[in-house]
Amino acid sequence: MVLAKKDISQLRYSVVHYPKTIQRLIEYLKNLPGVGQKTAERYAFSIIGWDETKRNALAKHLHSLATEITRCGTCGAYMELANCSFCSSAVRDETSLLIVAYPKEVYTLEELGGFRGKFHVLGGLLSPLDGIEPKDLSFNTLRNRIEKDNVTEIILALDTTIEGDATSLYLKELLSDLPITISRLAHGMPIGSSLEYIDRNTLYQAFAGRRGI
Amino acid sequence: MVLAKKDISQLRYSVVHYPKTIQRLIEYLKNLPGVGQKTAERYAFSIIGWDETKRNALAKHLHSLATEITRCGTCGAYMELANCSFCSSAVRDETSLLIVAYPKEVYTLEELGGFRGKFHVLGGLLSPLDGIEPKDLSFNTLRNRIEKDNVTEIILALDTTIEGDATSLYLKELLSDLPITISRLAHGMPIGSSLEYIDRNTLYQAFAGRRGI
Repeated sequence: MVLAKKDISQLRYSVVHYPKTIQRLIEYLKNLPGVGQKTAERYAFSIIGWDETKRNALAKHLHSLATEITRCGTCGAYMELANCSFCSSAVRDETSLLIVAYPKEVYTLEELGGFRGKFHVLGGLLSPLDGIEPKDLSFNTLRNRIEKDNVTEIILALDTTIEGDATSLYLKELLSDLPITISRLAHGMPIGSSLEYIDRNTLYQAFAGRRGI
Repeated sequence: MVLAKKDISQLRYSVVHYPKTIQRLIEYLKNLPGVGQKTAERYAFSIIGWDETKRNALAKHLHSLATEITRCGTCGAYMELANCSFCSSAVRDETSLLIVAYPKEVYTLEELGGFRGKFHVLGGLLSPLDGIEPKDLSFNTLRNRIEKDNVTEIILALDTTIEGDATSLYLKELLSDLPITISRLAHGMPIGSSLEYIDRNTLYQAFAGRRGI
């Protein structure tokens, strides 16, 4: 065997040239959140090594998603059947709305088990830098719902980020003329956290929101 | 809103109940290496949010993998066309074989650019605990190749793990009656590491420092 003497610097950062079918699979997988080249390569070779039956079942499932999973025209949550299980529920109080940014968050909050109102999914958070403006979110649908269903309470369960804050403020302005109470999930120290590692903003909010014990 | 007073311990570690179509997608994604429940959930909701065209293109691609990508009957590497690009190459020296465990590793080593012999993919590493025995790996094909092609040199590029060591020793015994030199990548590979994550410079040093076993 002869290993050509190459300048070692040449070896750095060069991209491995996979067969184009494999490279294409890698490119698809790089669309997943937080997945870069290396991780996509691992996933791709794992998938190629799968049993063909399993891979075809996944392919079929992906293909069926568009018809199986739709978004409710009222609340924006995902639904599997013709009726949204949240909106069509008779035991849910339609005068209380919990506002979230993304469909996934509905399930996280639903699992808490105590909320008996309905949901409203905005579809994202305001972010001018990413080109997400009020027209891109379901603000109009929300306002219509509030008026039509005589909603009296709105709870904002949005990220505690700049985008979440901006969206909360925007909603507060937008709905200020309606006879409803608007609240936002409390800011403060997460359960199990140590004071030493809490950032200053969180600590400030925790102080401001302190309650008698 | 009324959040029922539950024992907080009840809230912990509870599994979110997604619609079954989404749950099924999550289960498929948990087959990817290193992907657990939480990561699979993130991937699933990302995929559901994709444009339908993109998702269907991925589905079609997954479906086509079985026919597009096959394994070479001689060396075990993946091939896209009727001929293996490694085995059918006229400029490669067939008397020198580089042995790897998995098909992906062929590309990593090929990209080094200096090796002009041929490859042999074992299909894994010996691991009695995982039920991987000599009959599961392509040892017989390897022996036949060596005799048929008058191979004179074997280089083992295997992980420096217990399984890699066991496989190297097994191969040394298996081929001890043949007039060939056997070496193993040596310098530069940290103990306990996996070939997939080695940087190229280390790999280069390992090539240069290989020693007889």
